[in-house]
Amino acid sequence: MEIDRPEDQNSETKKNSSLFQIFFILLEVVIVILYGIFVEFRYDPVDPSLPWNEEPQTAFVTGYPVMQDVSVMMFIGFGFLMTFLRTHSWSAVGFNFILTVVVFQMYILYNGFWIRCVSGDNWDFKIQVDITTMVTALYCCAAILISLGGVLGKLNLFQLLVMAFIEACFYALNEAICFDRIHLQDIGGSITIHTFGAYFGLSVTMMISPKQTKGHPKNSSNYNSNLFAMIGTLFLWMYWPSFNCFPALNPEDRIRSVINTLLALTGSTTAVFITSSIFKKGKLSMEDVLNATLAGGVCVGTSADQIVYPFAALFVGYWAGFMSCVGFEVLSPLLQRKIGLYDTCGINNLHGMPGIFGGIFSAIFIGALTEDTLGYRVEDRFDGRTASEQGGLQIASLGITLAIAIITGVITGLILKLPCFNGPHDLFEDQVFWEM
Amino acid sequence: MEIDRPEDQNSETKKNSSLFQIFFILLEVVIVILYGIFVEFRYDPVDPSLPWNEEPQTAFVTGYPVMQDVSVMMFIGFGFLMTFLRTHSWSAVGFNFILTVVVFQMYILYNGFWIRCVSGDNWDFKIQVDITTMVTALYCCAAILISLGGVLGKLNLFQLLVMAFIEACFYALNEAICFDRIHLQDIGGSITIHTFGAYFGLSVTMMISPKQTKGHPKNSSNYNSNLFAMIGTLFLWMYWPSFNCFPALNPEDRIRSVINTLLALTGSTTAVFITSSIFKKGKLSMEDVLNATLAGGVCVGTSADQIVYPFAALFVGYWAGFMSCVGFEVLSPLLQRKIGLYDTCGINNLHGMPGIFGGIFSAIFIGALTEDTLGYRVEDRFDGRTASEQGGLQIASLGITLAIAIITGVITGLILKLPCFNGPHDLFEDQVFWEM
Amino acid sequence: MEIDRPEDQNSETKKNSSLFQIFFILLEVVIVILYGIFVEFRYDPVDPSLPWNEEPQTAFVTGYPVMQDVSVMMFIGFGFLMTFLRTHSWSAVGFNFILTVVVFQMYILYNGFWIRCVSGDNWDFKIQVDITTMVTALYCCAAILISLGGVLGKLNLFQLLVMAFIEACFYALNEAICFDRIHLQDIGGSITIHTFGAYFGLSVTMMISPKQTKGHPKNSSNYNSNLFAMIGTLFLWMYWPSFNCFPALNPEDRIRSVINTLLALTGSTTAVFITSSIFKKGKLSMEDVLNATLAGGVCVGTSADQIVYPFAALFVGYWAGFMSCVGFEVLSPLLQRKIGLYDTCGINNLHGMPGIFGGIFSAIFIGALTEDTLGYRVEDRFDGRTASEQGGLQIASLGITLAIAIITGVITGLILKLPCFNGPHDLFEDQVFWEM
Repeated sequence: MEIDRPEDQNSETKKNSSLFQIFFILLEVVIVILYGIFVEFRYDPVDPSLPWNEEPQTAFVTGYPVMQDVSVMMFIGFGFLMTFLRTHSWSAVGFNFILTVVVFQMYILYNGFWIRCVSGDNWDFKIQVDITTMVTALYCCAAILISLGGVLGKLNLFQLLVMAFIEACFYALNEAICFDRIHLQDIGGSITIHTFGAYFGLSVTMMISPKQTKGHPKNSSNYNSNLFAMIGTLFLWMYWPSFNCFPALNPEDRIRSVINTLLALTGSTTAVFITSSIFKKGKLSMEDVLNATLAGGVCVGTSADQIVYPFAALFVGYWAGFMSCVGFEVLSPLLQRKIGLYDTCGINNLHGMPGIFGGIFSAIFIGALTEDTLGYRVEDRFDGRTASEQGGLQIASLGITLAIAIITGVITGLILKLPCFNGPHDLFEDQVFWEM
Repeated sequence: MEIDRPEDQNSETKKNSSLFQIFFILLEVVIVILYGIFVEFRYDPVDPSLPWNEEPQTAFVTGYPVMQDVSVMMFIGFGFLMTFLRTHSWSAVGFNFILTVVVFQMYILYNGFWIRCVSGDNWDFKIQVDITTMVTALYCCAAILISLGGVLGKLNLFQLLVMAFIEACFYALNEAICFDRIHLQDIGGSITIHTFGAYFGLSVTMMISPKQTKGHPKNSSNYNSNLFAMIGTLFLWMYWPSFNCFPALNPEDRIRSVINTLLALTGSTTAVFITSSIFKKGKLSMEDVLNATLAGGVCVGTSADQIVYPFAALFVGYWAGFMSCVGFEVLSPLLQRKIGLYDTCGINNLHGMPGIFGGIFSAIFIGALTEDTLGYRVEDRFDGRTASEQGGLQIASLGITLAIAIITGVITGLILKLPCFNGPHDLFEDQVFWEM
Repeated sequence: MEIDRPEDQNSETKKNSSLFQIFFILLEVVIVILYGIFVEFRYDPVDPSLPWNEEPQTAFVTGYPVMQDVSVMMFIGFGFLMTFLRTHSWSAVGFNFILTVVVFQMYILYNGFWIRCVSGDNWDFKIQVDITTMVTALYCCAAILISLGGVLGKLNLFQLLVMAFIEACFYALNEAICFDRIHLQDIGGSITIHTFGAYFGLSVTMMISPKQTKGHPKNSSNYNSNLFAMIGTLFLWMYWPSFNCFPALNPEDRIRSVINTLLALTGSTTAVFITSSIFKKGKLSMEDVLNATLAGGVCVGTSADQIVYPFAALFVGYWAGFMSCVGFEVLSPLLQRKIGLYDTCGINNLHGMPGIFGGIFSAIFIGALTEDTLGYRVEDRFDGRTASEQGGLQIASLGITLAIAIITGVITGLILKLPCFNGPHDLFEDQVFWEM
């Protein structure tokens, strides 16, 4: 299998390749040792003479198909959405692949560690893995892949791996603080996943974007690269209800999360086609359609199980799609000019702003819940907290998430500028990373 | 993100763009208001102190994975199947995307309205949405996307939106008549979805096809556009059993629908590879393979839950695949020459004729059901109607569906020719619609 | 739909096309007759007055979503993985499509026949088809598609069809021997599917590879063909847990199979990125990433439900990924030079060696099971056999599978060289098979 393009062995990739290989091998050795010591299956082989357990079957039929949808969102969804760069499609889908895999492995350990730190007990028990663990690990992957969207084309795989190594750690810490301490309600992760991933990634981008990013000729798409990207967009769109519904505690909430997410996505999609048509004077921008159409899924995430009126989900979607489209058309060029923020995939527009709005909306929706709309006491829903208390906790979590993401992102960016990493001189270019 | 192709701002898209934007905004404003007034969730948040409800969990585990398959058929299946046009792939997948979304929103309202008109009562109740509503809305999308296949490349997005607005309305009316009045058995929608969508689309096409459609150089595919289309074909093929099984009332019927659909699809696929090889003197036609292979799924639709002998499903598949392939190789060129019917995707071959045959076959299969083959009284299966009565109702529904589709299609075609829509002067061309 | 490439009607495809068409028609006529006589549905229409059956609903919700994942692996996974050849992508996905369909039809008959021969009774009963039958038929397709990977580009569709006709027969025989006689434990088919398919295919390849295969200029990929192939790789990767978990007898084993498969896949993926980077001096090989990343899923197949420590699954993955990558980088070129084995997709590296290792690992894992690790008597798990007895049966099955695959593969290769098949003179070329 060979491709007739000139052999262009870049020297910089050679230099740091040994360091990269050593780091990666050590990382995997440590992972496999820690799995050997700390990780066990929730379900062991069962004695066939004992009666049938209903619980694992329920876990399987309610969980596994949803988990597979989330898995497709990570590998195909994020992977192909980022193939739009015409000379960086291989790296987009390939680096997306390996980062997802490594973060998946690491998160299970990080999560087991931080949960015990935050809740302060059960250090004796091992980390038990089941279907739910798989999904929460994929949620962590989502955050890291969002950050990847910000730095895409500007870092080599060694840098990306170190970024993922640090980010997954603080993602898991923030998640443990928000859910196990603050009791955040964030079923679809607008706050903990999208806001965290976006502002971590943007902070790294601010630190590491080289000067020549500006107007780089390879920072562009072509006819087929956008069609490949559309595969990613559509699988993200279709399976977003699975992403937003999995953590629901009962099937009623789960079904409502599915429908709210679908309605919000239809809202953002229609808003984007209208807004893009206005900006482009009757034509459409493929960049808007590939990205901003998904903003409804991001924005409705935190409150997908809380919204009790279908039109409210539609409204969240319209707002998210409109804002995201304005972000791509107005805000991104502005931020590039004013503060030199080069956000390759526009993650601020698709994940950052819609994530923050999702957090704010959740405070409003939850704060507005009453015994009348719910049919039972609000305190029964939130473990004794009132609607306004829970609303306040939502905003507090948003603030903590932003703080952790930005601080750790800036530090990560500084680390990645160390000479040992030897970042790529040629940007947005597959030939630096792949034998072609 | 920019593509190095000449800037070619077509004046006609500019002219009608304001009208399009106003129409679209008004449509969405009306939709969100009507959702606010009439639509509510079937499942509200539950009081955690009450006992667990089995019913929503059953609804979720039996319905949600099937719904997601149907969703993939709409967005990826139809969307990518239509990318085969080498300069119209973006519009194919993009317009497919937005039409699906808008029809999804509209259908829920249309259906709520017509069901009440036809059944004549319960005007007091709100429209309750659940997983089943999502699937029936996607079924409506299928009909509109089939029509899109007929007019693809010849209408702008404004015209398509108006077409969808009208078609979804009469689709929902026809559906209400056939199911709630006539008690049609049509689990996979050969009649109500495929026949309706195909002949509505063909009627519109007859009205609006411009003269220059004939032998238009851009009405063609290339190597990669056909590979993208294959993604669509295969996802339609694989998930067709989900499309044909969802409405089954019991798991036995559902499993038999799945298997009948799979067998019919294997029948049509083998028939197409043989027939195409005969027509092409030992070679294969990609157009046949992309389309006619799916005819078995269309044709078995109405009777997927009624067929009790596996070989009968195979036979339906062979017949549908053979007829569809003959349609692409012989009938389509003939209709182009004789009556000027330019059917971009060959929807008459893939959905029209196999849909009609599906309706006729269902009358035969149902008419042939006896207490011996069923194991219980036929009247118990059809709410008191005999096998031949139900067979007659199948044919009556087919006739009504054809009449409504053709009449409303012709009227829609006439409306779309109004000067205010300003149809595209350059056909099968993405540059008219997208900033490239 | 036409493509502007020169008309190049190859004479050899014409010559054997009539024979091919006659063979294919006869095959389908025989199939439909045999289905009419021998095949019936497991579930007939139910009398609505009888009480609800739980069993078919459980079969549906535990089986159908998993079956659909396996279906996607066949049509999209294998189909697109093989599109990497830049002038053979249409044939890759098209021949993959039709072979899957025909094998699916044939397997149900073959399996029904051999099961009765091996178990020696119940000739009176018909072959009853249900969801499980669909999945086991798709497993058979997997074996034949693996073989297709070895001969891809070197056989015409007639030859492939005859190969599938013979291979599916002996696949079903070997499966019946291993499972119904020897009581092999092989949940994910490392032995019966991957090893069988790989060494059957390699034996055929050894027999039929023409001289000009060596260094053939069209045996190469390009930028977009590798991106299409990545779609195949990722869907295989994501849905492999479904492939490896379906036959589990209880939900605990099924969930553990899912997680073991995922962990093994993350192991092989990380191993491949490291190993490929070492071989390519800091760059990555797309061939390695497309293929060897999946080796963990192959290798863990046999023991996915037996492994009780998560780190063991990781280890199996690392080993399989490393070996597979070494296979692509070192062994394949060596075998080409030394014994003239031209293995188009590298099936020896992805399915052959990892399959054999999977069989050996299963003997070790099963042999090491004790009452302590299991929590109950090992004999209760294996129908009265001890751990070491069952371990020995694993190795015996591996040997029998290899013997049947190689012997029948060699004979098949000799048959396919008969002049009546008239193999393609131009290799790796779609224009020979498709009207373009």
